[in-house]
Order: sequence, then structure tokens, then C-alpha cells
Amino acid sequence: MTTTTNPLNEKSGMVPKDAKVTVIGAGVIGISWAGLFLANGLKVTVNDVRPDLEESTLKGLNELKPSLQALGYQIDHLESGLSFEKDLAKALEGADYVQENGPENIQFKQNLYVNIEAGLKSGALVLSSSSGIPATVFAEKMKDPSRVLVGHPFNPPHLIPLVEIVPGKQTSEAAISDAKSFYAALGKKPVVINKEVPGFVANRLQAAIFRECVYLVSEEVVRMESLDDIVSNSIGLRWAAAGPFKTFTLGGGPGGFSHFLEHFGPGLEQLWQVLGSPHFDKTTVDKLVEQETRAYGQVLYEDLQKERDNQQLAIMAAKKQ
Amino acid sequence: MTTTTNPLNEKSGMVPKDAKVTVIGAGVIGISWAGLFLANGLKVTVNDVRPDLEESTLKGLNELKPSLQALGYQIDHLESGLSFEKDLAKALEGADYVQENGPENIQFKQNLYVNIEAGLKSGALVLSSSSGIPATVFAEKMKDPSRVLVGHPFNPPHLIPLVEIVPGKQTSEAAISDAKSFYAALGKKPVVINKEVPGFVANRLQAAIFRECVYLVSEEVVRMESLDDIVSNSIGLRWAAAGPFKTFTLGGGPGGFSHFLEHFGPGLEQLWQVLGSPHFDKTTVDKLVEQETRAYGQVLYEDLQKERDNQQLAIMAAKKQ
Repeated sequence: MTTTTNPLNEKSGMVPKDAKVTVIGAGVIGISWAGLFLANGLKVTVNDVRPDLEESTLKGLNELKPSLQALGYQIDHLESGLSFEKDLAKALEGADYVQENGPENIQFKQNLYVNIEAGLKSGALVLSSSSGIPATVFAEKMKDPSRVLVGHPFNPPHLIPLVEIVPGKQTSEAAISDAKSFYAALGKKPVVINKEVPGFVANRLQAAIFRECVYLVSEEVVRMESLDDIVSNSIGLRWAAAGPFKTFTLGGGPGGFSHFLEHFGPGLEQLWQVLGSPHFDKTTVDKLVEQETRAYGQVLYEDLQKERDNQQLAIMAAKKQ
Repeated sequence: MTTTTNPLNEKSGMVPKDAKVTVIGAGVIGISWAGLFLANGLKVTVNDVRPDLEESTLKGLNELKPSLQALGYQIDHLESGLSFEKDLAKALEGADYVQENGPENIQFKQNLYVNIEAGLKSGALVLSSSSGIPATVFAEKMKDPSRVLVGHPFNPPHLIPLVEIVPGKQTSEAAISDAKSFYAALGKKPVVINKEVPGFVANRLQAAIFRECVYLVSEEVVRMESLDDIVSNSIGLRWAAAGPFKTFTLGGGPGGFSHFLEHFGPGLEQLWQVLGSPHFDKTTVDKLVEQETRAYGQVLYEDLQKERDNQQLAIMAAKKQ
């Protein structure tokens, strides 16, 4: 597995000042990535056809600064490595890495990747923030998709550690390894997914628990804010420290996971039989929105977000101890 | 709603030294509750027919001490308020509160509650750690079950804040309110569940996400330790700070939850269609245990637990900031 094309690896996990990243798409995700790359000292070119590209990117970066600072980054000269380029071919000149954040549209993405390939220097690594369309599909029209794969962040990318690395059928082992090294050097937690299933892993798990959340609230088993309190004072706390399997392995005592399965497996299977299957029909949506308004509607969005982000940063700092 | 029978309320959330709790059942859960009650200065009588009652309880309490200390409790004279009584009627003498941790067996529990009623002073509050049998069922043979309800902890009770308060059909409003005050005065986070559904709320949510965890690992979409890393670096972190509804409300931006549902509801419903329905058949269990052995089998149970508990305590301290 060669990593010579990856400047991050050559410096043993340190991020070199001379690496260049092209960020395609200056929406919320793209700007968050750009902020993280800049904070790590990379040269960043942001590419988007939007007319207010500079203005909106600079505004977005300013909003990230408190979080980046809380994460330990210097933010005084954050924009010094930043440039803008509306022309894709020019934006890609000299890029070592591409982080693509285009719309989730197969046709659009397939054309985009043909154009990316045309402008790319040999050996560059192309990563997509795609949360739905897999690399095997969006890279289908490329001549050589071996260095193209999904690097799917958990929103917002500059804050939450997880990046799901989802290779396509044509992605090389070296590219997978380079993607892991790249994100790890930026302080992220890259995790490789072996199959291109819909929703990858984090969003599937989120969907699975949220289905039951919607069911329990719409059936009036529990109020919305009570359900949120339940999660953040039990399973959320637990899983911030150790994932579900590690938790249940410990739940089995010294006998471990097989002991856990023996004793609690039948009870879990019984619960699986009675979990709900709700739909977002009008009655359900109305009930949820009514409860949400009562639970969180009195607090300004900005205040609710700031409170959550501060707690998030404190929890992340505690985890690193 | 009168709370005069509740000595904790009379001191506005402070725990009075003279309140007495009878802990029925000296298994892991009962001992953990006893430790928390003692640390809060309550008088605790532990009741169980096991021949090694004193020895095993004292051993268990010793094991809790580092966590109790980390939570900020004085542990030097933890056992000074502790007594043992194998006879139920004697154990209940003078009790203001009962926390029952008997086996999950309907017949056994129904008989137990008849005996509890016979020995109980008027106005005492009876709380059950039951995770499965609801109060309406286990209190069915009592003459007056109005002050009986479920206070279901998330294991271990002395450490994890959540207590699910699940009233039975006959439970009075005053008893619900007293139960909330009691647990809140002990530093717990009591949350009321409105309906006695199987698994209450936390265990249902845990079952819902774990079903998909089992599916994804058994289908080899992702390795077990990778899945654990995904959860503890994304949704676990998030939900420790804010529950699923609050998270998705913020995910909707200034437009809030209805904006979120409009944009992401259809995608969630699509994912619901493709989530897995695994069973703990031999093939699945063998695969899970094989992966668990590879992921966590090399580390001593005690070390894995200590690492997790330390991180847990650090995260909880961060949340309180």
C-alpha cells in the first residue's frame, strides 16, 4: 500500500502547509469543511457558481470561528490560505485533495466527476460528502475512479469527529488508506464502511432510533422533551463513552457479550416485535410540530444552538482527557 | 397535589438525614441504589433472603465507592446509615420509601407487593426498579396501590442520571410528584412515562437502534468496533448534549422542526423501508461473538469497564458545567 502521493502521510500524520484542497460547493457543509482545512493550515480554494461566493463563504467562516477556537485552533489568520475560483478547471489546478459537496443528484454528480477528472492532477485524492449517492454510481463515467470515494461527515464537519469512508467498487486500497490518513491528520475520526448501503451507517442508525422516537411521541407514551431528556441522560451519555456493542459487552459482566446475548437477547427480540412503524402523515406531523413548538419554540434558534454546541464542545473535551 | 408525606420535599429538594429507605433485593441494582441513598445521607435497610446478604452488599458497596467519590459524594462513613434485615416486615418498619428490586416474575412480584402493603406505614412511597412488569400488574392484588409505581433506573442507578417514572393506573398524582421530587433530590433525572408500554422508553429506543446495529454487523457492512466508533463519535456525542428531537429541530435551521421534516422526512421514511430485521439465530450469534472477541476480547473486563466509567464520569461532569 503506497502512500507517496499523500503529503499528509509523508509527515507522519502532520498536516503540511503546502497541501492544497479544492472545496467544491460552498453550502453549509462545504464552508464547514473549508474552515476545518484552513484551521489546519491547508491552502483552500472554494469553488461554486453562486454569485455571492466570497461574501457568503466569509460570513459562514466567521460563524465557525468560536467553535474552531474552542477546538484549540488559531483563528487570527484563518482566511490567509483561502482563495475563490468559480471556474472548476482553474479551481482544481494543483489540488492534492478535493472535497466535493455538490447536490445529491445522480446526473449532476456524474457530469461533475467527469469534469473533475479532466482538471485533476495525477494522484490527487477525490472525496465526496455525499450522504446518499455512492461512489460506484457517481464516478461511473470516469475513466479512472480508483482515487475517488465518499468521505461523508456528520454535520457539522468541523465539529463532529466522525467521517464515514465509503469506497466504491473501483476505489483502490491506497486511496482508502490515504483518505483515512488525511482525515485523521485533521483530527477527525475516519471509519471505513465495507458496503455501499443506503444511508451508510450513522444515518441508518439515526433513522432506526428516530422511527421509535416518532412512534412513542405520536402515541403519547411520552412527551417530546421528556424523550429528549431520556436519551441525553441515559443512552446518549453511554454511547458518547462507548458504542452499543461495547456497552452490551460490559452489560454481560465478566461473561462478556455471549453472556449478555444469552440473558438479554430473548428480551430484545421480544421488544423488536412491538416497535412501532409510524409514517409522516398529516396527523403525525401535526402532533410532532405542536409538541416541538411547545418544547423548544420559546427559545431563539441561535440560543438553542449555542447552548447545544457549548455542551457538545465540553463533552468532546472531556472525552479527550 | 400534597407532598407533606414526602420529607425530601419539605426541605425543598434537600435530602433529610432522617428519611428511611428500605431496599428490597440485594442484587447489582439494589446495591447500587443502596450506595446512592447512603451517599445522600439516607438511612438504608437492605432486605434480601440471600445467606451472604451482609458480605455481598458490603463488597458491592466498596466497588461503588470510586464512582460515588467521583460524583462528589463523601464516602468515608458510607455504611454508617446502613442496616440489614432478612425479614421483610421488620425491614419495612418506619420506611418512608421502598425501592424494590425483586426478580421479574409476575407471581413473585404480586405476592411481594401484598406483603409490602401489610408491613408498610401509611403514606410511604413504593418504587419498583422493574424493567418489564408494569405497576398496574404487579400491584394488582394490593388493597391500595395509589402510592406504588415504577422508578426504573438505567444501569447502574448510582451513576446514570435517568430514572423512568412509570405510574400504574391506580397511582395518584401526588405519588408521581413525590417520586419525581425524591429522585431529583438525589441528583437523578426523573422522567415521567405516560403509558405502561413494554420496555418503557429507554429500552425500546435501545432495542430499536441495536436491531440495526446487529443487522449491519451481521451483513458485514461494517465491523463491530467500527460501528461502536461511529456511534461514539457522532450520534452518541450529539445525544449526550441534546436528544433526537432537539437535534433535528436544530438540524432544520431557523425554520426548525417543521422545516426539518419537510426536507428530511421523506429520506427518513425511505431509510425506514430498508432497515434490517435480524434474529439472534446461531449464525448471527456466532458472527457477533466472533467479532466481539476480536474487538474487545483481548482487554480485561475490569480494565474495559474502568476506562468506560472514567470517560462516562468526565462526560457527565462536562455536561454539568
